[in-house]
Amino acid sequence: MITSTQNPRIKHLLLLQQKSAQRKADGLFVVEGRREVEHCLSAGFRLRTAFVCEELNESPLSLGQDVEVVPVARNVYERIAYRGGTEGVVAVVEVRKTSLDDLRLSASPLIVVLESVEKPGNLGAVLRSADAAGADAVIVCDPLTDLYNPNLIRSAVGALFTVPCVACSTEECITFLKAKGIQILTAQLQDSSLYYNTPMTGPTAIVMGTEATGLTDQWRQAADAHIRIPMLGRLDSLNVSVSAAILLFEAVRQRHSEKS
Amino acid sequence: MITSTQNPRIKHLLLLQQKSAQRKADGLFVVEGRREVEHCLSAGFRLRTAFVCEELNESPLSLGQDVEVVPVARNVYERIAYRGGTEGVVAVVEVRKTSLDDLRLSASPLIVVLESVEKPGNLGAVLRSADAAGADAVIVCDPLTDLYNPNLIRSAVGALFTVPCVACSTEECITFLKAKGIQILTAQLQDSSLYYNTPMTGPTAIVMGTEATGLTDQWRQAADAHIRIPMLGRLDSLNVSVSAAILLFEAVRQRHSEKS
Repeated sequence: MITSTQNPRIKHLLLLQQKSAQRKADGLFVVEGRREVEHCLSAGFRLRTAFVCEELNESPLSLGQDVEVVPVARNVYERIAYRGGTEGVVAVVEVRKTSLDDLRLSASPLIVVLESVEKPGNLGAVLRSADAAGADAVIVCDPLTDLYNPNLIRSAVGALFTVPCVACSTEECITFLKAKGIQILTAQLQDSSLYYNTPMTGPTAIVMGTEATGLTDQWRQAADAHIRIPMLGRLDSLNVSVSAAILLFEAVRQRHSEKS
Repeated sequence: MITSTQNPRIKHLLLLQQKSAQRKADGLFVVEGRREVEHCLSAGFRLRTAFVCEELNESPLSLGQDVEVVPVARNVYERIAYRGGTEGVVAVVEVRKTSLDDLRLSASPLIVVLESVEKPGNLGAVLRSADAAGADAVIVCDPLTDLYNPNLIRSAVGALFTVPCVACSTEECITFLKAKGIQILTAQLQDSSLYYNTPMTGPTAIVMGTEATGLTDQWRQAADAHIRIPMLGRLDSLNVSVSAAILLFEAVRQRHSEKS
């Protein structure tokens, strides 16, 4: 059992949590919490090592065959765990790159595109909304986005493993959507229709910019339609994951109403 | 100009930020950032003191007559400011209690009720969604809720001052809604209809429990209808502010579609 926070493996784990460059160099990232680890395993990610604090484990974990299990003392676990209530497991997992070509889309895909990501936690929250709406994928138009940031994983509460997430360039994304016949709906306040008057039953990508600067012209021009959520209060913006959820669930509503 | 973080007024300000008990004892709370302070003023709150860091102020602040302006040095500002980009103002504001009887409701009110609040930041995010949807009020069914928690104020990005927010008991809330003829829609996964099949054009209160435990029986029994957001992914929950936004904007959609 590892009892010192100065143990080299613990130090390496902390580096993986803290440094994007370390994650990229090693092709590894860190997942914390029993539920997240389970989602990660069932999505087919390969666990390298599980650091386990036995006294916090309420029931046995089933981690598969190849996983090295390393017991750690409580003080070590408290150093490596970001959150409370994670039931004593922090795992090192191999990065798996998903490209646009890897996406397996449904008959009428529903996709969220983020032009860029202001905060990793926002992307995590968008993934969570995308999971709930049964979306096919979330695409981030910045090939350098670190999909394995701990704040992202935490706010996604498992959705990073249940919703395919791709980082690519804007050009690649637009080419992909047009080739697949997926309509591009850009969320923007100017020159736009109310979102609930816009049909979303066909293949649809909902594209959103940042809260601060909105979408670039490249996306506005590529769009099949511009849509907006009416802002009926005195403030002028919604959180990006909230906006994504409102638009995704309008697509859900339209698609389910059609069926009934 | 205050140049020391040990200055007694700065120490008192930090206590107001950190301690709910101090806020209650003094009837004061802290608002940070130019935009939030402006919303706070236009909502009619009374500012007691504004601590201002001149070098971070890009343009003059207009704070009204009675406000004492105290210049602070940059190092002091950095100690008292929670966030970046707040443009050099942190204000001490007088608490103003809003009761159910103070609410001025529209002809067909739209209200969000939270049975309890797990994290102050969640309530702030719900207020932000409620502002966007033009909701009449947010009611929290715990009379002891501290509406002036800094995490709440920060995540509300001003909505605490644009949307009336009341803390009261569950009994008081149910009595109020029934007396006003406002239908009670409880969000719950069991024994419920899809939210978009439920009419929300009349006076409506959307009632939500916590992410962890859901709603109590008291609310389920008081309900006119039970509604649910379909969970189409592999996870089983949405953030409470996201759920609130989906339900509120369905009400917006129904109300606007009716008019057109």
